[in-house]
Amino acid sequence: MIVVMQSEATKEQVAHVSDLVREMGLKDHVIVGTDLTVVAVIGDDRKKEKRRLEQAPGVDRVVPILHPYKIAAKESRKERTQVRISDACVIGGGHVPIVAGPCSVENEKQILESARQVKAAGCHALRGGAFKPRTNPYAFQGLGEEGLKLLAAARDETGLAIVTEVLTPTEVDLVSSYADCLQIGARNCQNFKLLEAVGKQPKPVLFKRGMSTTIDEYLQAAEYILAQGNPNVVLCERGVRTFEDHTRNTLSLSAVPELHIRTHLPIAVDPSHGTGHARLVADMSRAAVAAGADALMIELHPDPEHAMTDGAQSLTPQALKDLVPTLARVAQAVDRSIN
Amino acid sequence: MIVVMQSEATKEQVAHVSDLVREMGLKDHVIVGTDLTVVAVIGDDRKKEKRRLEQAPGVDRVVPILHPYKIAAKESRKERTQVRISDACVIGGGHVPIVAGPCSVENEKQILESARQVKAAGCHALRGGAFKPRTNPYAFQGLGEEGLKLLAAARDETGLAIVTEVLTPTEVDLVSSYADCLQIGARNCQNFKLLEAVGKQPKPVLFKRGMSTTIDEYLQAAEYILAQGNPNVVLCERGVRTFEDHTRNTLSLSAVPELHIRTHLPIAVDPSHGTGHARLVADMSRAAVAAGADALMIELHPDPEHAMTDGAQSLTPQALKDLVPTLARVAQAVDRSIN
Amino acid sequence: MIVVMQSEATKEQVAHVSDLVREMGLKDHVIVGTDLTVVAVIGDDRKKEKRRLEQAPGVDRVVPILHPYKIAAKESRKERTQVRISDACVIGGGHVPIVAGPCSVENEKQILESARQVKAAGCHALRGGAFKPRTNPYAFQGLGEEGLKLLAAARDETGLAIVTEVLTPTEVDLVSSYADCLQIGARNCQNFKLLEAVGKQPKPVLFKRGMSTTIDEYLQAAEYILAQGNPNVVLCERGVRTFEDHTRNTLSLSAVPELHIRTHLPIAVDPSHGTGHARLVADMSRAAVAAGADALMIELHPDPEHAMTDGAQSLTPQALKDLVPTLARVAQAVDRSIN
Amino acid sequence: MIVVMQSEATKEQVAHVSDLVREMGLKDHVIVGTDLTVVAVIGDDRKKEKRRLEQAPGVDRVVPILHPYKIAAKESRKERTQVRISDACVIGGGHVPIVAGPCSVENEKQILESARQVKAAGCHALRGGAFKPRTNPYAFQGLGEEGLKLLAAARDETGLAIVTEVLTPTEVDLVSSYADCLQIGARNCQNFKLLEAVGKQPKPVLFKRGMSTTIDEYLQAAEYILAQGNPNVVLCERGVRTFEDHTRNTLSLSAVPELHIRTHLPIAVDPSHGTGHARLVADMSRAAVAAGADALMIELHPDPEHAMTDGAQSLTPQALKDLVPTLARVAQAVDRSIN
Repeated sequence: MIVVMQSEATKEQVAHVSDLVREMGLKDHVIVGTDLTVVAVIGDDRKKEKRRLEQAPGVDRVVPILHPYKIAAKESRKERTQVRISDACVIGGGHVPIVAGPCSVENEKQILESARQVKAAGCHALRGGAFKPRTNPYAFQGLGEEGLKLLAAARDETGLAIVTEVLTPTEVDLVSSYADCLQIGARNCQNFKLLEAVGKQPKPVLFKRGMSTTIDEYLQAAEYILAQGNPNVVLCERGVRTFEDHTRNTLSLSAVPELHIRTHLPIAVDPSHGTGHARLVADMSRAAVAAGADALMIELHPDPEHAMTDGAQSLTPQALKDLVPTLARVAQAVDRSIN
Repeated sequence: MIVVMQSEATKEQVAHVSDLVREMGLKDHVIVGTDLTVVAVIGDDRKKEKRRLEQAPGVDRVVPILHPYKIAAKESRKERTQVRISDACVIGGGHVPIVAGPCSVENEKQILESARQVKAAGCHALRGGAFKPRTNPYAFQGLGEEGLKLLAAARDETGLAIVTEVLTPTEVDLVSSYADCLQIGARNCQNFKLLEAVGKQPKPVLFKRGMSTTIDEYLQAAEYILAQGNPNVVLCERGVRTFEDHTRNTLSLSAVPELHIRTHLPIAVDPSHGTGHARLVADMSRAAVAAGADALMIELHPDPEHAMTDGAQSLTPQALKDLVPTLARVAQAVDRSIN
Repeated sequence: MIVVMQSEATKEQVAHVSDLVREMGLKDHVIVGTDLTVVAVIGDDRKKEKRRLEQAPGVDRVVPILHPYKIAAKESRKERTQVRISDACVIGGGHVPIVAGPCSVENEKQILESARQVKAAGCHALRGGAFKPRTNPYAFQGLGEEGLKLLAAARDETGLAIVTEVLTPTEVDLVSSYADCLQIGARNCQNFKLLEAVGKQPKPVLFKRGMSTTIDEYLQAAEYILAQGNPNVVLCERGVRTFEDHTRNTLSLSAVPELHIRTHLPIAVDPSHGTGHARLVADMSRAAVAAGADALMIELHPDPEHAMTDGAQSLTPQALKDLVPTLARVAQAVDRSIN
Repeated sequence: MIVVMQSEATKEQVAHVSDLVREMGLKDHVIVGTDLTVVAVIGDDRKKEKRRLEQAPGVDRVVPILHPYKIAAKESRKERTQVRISDACVIGGGHVPIVAGPCSVENEKQILESARQVKAAGCHALRGGAFKPRTNPYAFQGLGEEGLKLLAAARDETGLAIVTEVLTPTEVDLVSSYADCLQIGARNCQNFKLLEAVGKQPKPVLFKRGMSTTIDEYLQAAEYILAQGNPNVVLCERGVRTFEDHTRNTLSLSAVPELHIRTHLPIAVDPSHGTGHARLVADMSRAAVAAGADALMIELHPDPEHAMTDGAQSLTPQALKDLVPTLARVAQAVDRSIN
């Protein structure tokens, strides 16, 4: 870190900052500039409470230099991590799998139909929520374990791996016993107890970015999972909250190349939540592949007009079927493949 | 809700929307305008999945009209709810209590000193975290139950009620057995399982706004607690995430009068997290009281330079002592009182 | 518009709103719902001050329904507008031109070299600023008319059309006399006097989105140009301001398909300003083409380390040369072409 | 500035950065840390294009240290600047003047009535727009010079100083010849040509913050005015653009104490634009005074239901009259005065 002193700071104040730095087990290095003095701090300060130095007299501000994550950092592993959800769905290699399916598991007919349509469209895994985090307390909250059973039945029929969300630590074992991959939703991106819990179970984790987490915060949150011993984490950009009102969220595709620079973890994109409108999903799916996304997560519903959740952003079966070949073409143009 | 049709929508498309509306158990009312047609929907659609109508052919967008919460709404209760945490700390009346204390309970000496300083400054309850949600997985995570015991000891000595955070449903009973008021932090604002859990226990809940939740989302989240039978919810504005970089968050004080218009629940303000810098806390505390806040939550540390967490935003004991009388003057100017 | 009454509004208050609506020359249509009453307003209210109805007693809020622009709207013209800057650079058809060049014109050598490199890389027009809007008053502000002359010399040599920014109405004629296309920068997106001025001159306008303008505001601003009689407007997404800190701005690519739905005007993307870092430009350029962008605007500098402005986001000549063929492949994958 | 090298940067790359730094006329100072190396740069780099160093091989990022403004900085002047608009309206001292009036000058009757009401309520200057920047090109754009004449008539009758907006450099002299204080609106916060123009004329400038400018950018923009020789600049927080939708903008009151720390210029607050709803103006006005604002700018209309612009956020004459005494009480509580 760099501690920037106020322009009128005294020598004693600088010396006091140096003392505090040494107290923290770090080395201080004072640089007297033409306008002000800074104290450069040498040593690994990732685990230190740095910002409290702002309270020392004469300090203007504290500027962190080291990125605050370790296992997630590119430095810790040069090649991109490949996360295997099933033979057909390996995320992080030359192949860009598509995970598709309804927002919620609604009933047997709906999820089986969805699975067949997802398979027929050429996608690689099935998504579907059994435990649903809903903004409104009175909205449909999912079928719970019954939903998990229906997902398993859909897998049995189609062979598609299943990706489904878990909401709370006490349900991790249950969900893990059914799913091929656990999803952590955006609202739980900094639910650290839940992150620790999925870090302790063996299935891969599809871990969505929170709607207002920075890249640094996101990778620190991923580190909570990794630090528990589970290396199979797929990051997922799903839109961030901004002033824009033509979409539900602003899909920040620059997070894809930026994360590829900073971490070895693969990155999926969810253009359905990332836009909130089915009309924008096809273009943004293509853009995501072109930006280098390692997987896509797309909402499909056999009958969006009657969907119990997220109807506005779900593709129809026909729309998904039409979309996949165009994604294959874009993937090829960037030296990757869909099928 | 209002379903706005595209300008070129056909009569059949409008009729189809009417059908869908009636299928949902609601009444449709078609209005043909000069430029386009809208379908006004009559009936309580709060629990319906409205946005799926966007998928019906010819629909441009769906505009919700009813606010999506009920128990939290002003309509359900005309007078402001008063939440009693202790005799000295009743939130929602003419008196504006101050909850102060360190971010984390660090050790016996630190929390007892803090409690005495909080008391000496004329504040009304003690805050302090035993379970800490930390952005960085390697940072200090709190003392756990040991921290709760130290808080109880501080209460025994000073008589101050204690407010402390709970992170996960399985720890709700434990925290509830020690605390006078449970805090839900900003990162858990939409951790619905946790909200349900604190809704089922008897202690009041100080419920912080998430860093990117809208007022509508926030009140729906509060409704999760209320719907479980716990009416003692104190809302708390603590800053939202924006592009601004001179503060850790942007303290949105207009949330105070807006919430007073929309809900009967009392509203606290946390200027410490809301700014992230001790140098801004005094002015923003005074502004919060002037804006009509029902309580303040302020971080104090006996020695901020050495605080294990949130040192940059904690007031020194002297700064807190100097602040309280000025808050009393502002409170009086808006016909309320601090002491 | 829809005027939503408060739940406790009286009949008299509703009648008063109806009166105000009729006074505005519009038709009122009262709908009594189960929870509250709304007044639907029929007629073209685009030019009316609608929000003042919020002040009528008993009104909760006013919800606009009609989009507030006309000439820019898709309804006014079904086919996409093609804007011809030169024979090689027609924006809005099957071909996706690339406008490249340095942020600023620095001297003769730099701009001529840039032009040759832009041409050699297979791009279609040259950008370069002679009048620079700089955040810092002490920074290099451009060469002024001398810069325009150097651009013209570069055009003479390479045949590339030139796109350059204009900052103030009094300089419009001067810039227009040199440039093939005038650029309006993000900071001037709502500088309405300037928009009117470029609307009155004959050259096409590349009109950048402001850093916090919504799509509705942006199209209204474009309407200022169109309403003066200049139909040749190219919109340009260049990143919006959000909480994200890994980029200078957040490039919101979903604006591309959304604008294609709402307007007939073509849409360019500027991934250089949209990210602020050269390391992200290639991936985001490919993503922009895949999202359907009608043109790209990319910063190139012969020697970015020594650029007088925007060095951090400028591609090197080699990087641009390597990029263009990959863009051609992506363009082909979405049935368009670069060359 | 600090140049942070990538962890794998070579010695040659560090040496190259040192060379570039020296080429810029600055001094380099290399610090080898445990995880990476940084190059601290000594010397005044305020006028340098720093970010281009990001392009040097092996560089991770560039961290600026010096604040990029000089005349506006606290260091250049210890006491707060007092800006005298009239004897009754001096901004920056113990007295907190209120500038009130309609958004637009609509006609003689309206502006004279407004002026009388503003005076009767105990306010200190009259605002009113003759040249209006309107989001919608078809909306009322103000009366132009006729509006200025009506403002002058209102001043003649009431003795109130007048504050009115100027939109473009060519109108600066005209507006300056009528007004006692020129206003620069939020949309023109980075219209640098206009800032230079008002910097060259003698009247004080009320300079509004842009809706997405940071504090650093805002003070650099103010520096454009100051650098032309006009020291009489009043800053004005008027709300910033965020995801929040209960207000038109998010009034960021922490800008008030932050600006007081960084600059000697006085700071006004505009709670009318800062919230967009009359129902929030009184509370936020009181909060602004408590936060230390040096002046308030409040919209008043004799008949808001019929206002031609900004009706939703204008106070009625009675509401303004009721508000002022409460502001006086809050002002007194923070050792300042209104009357």
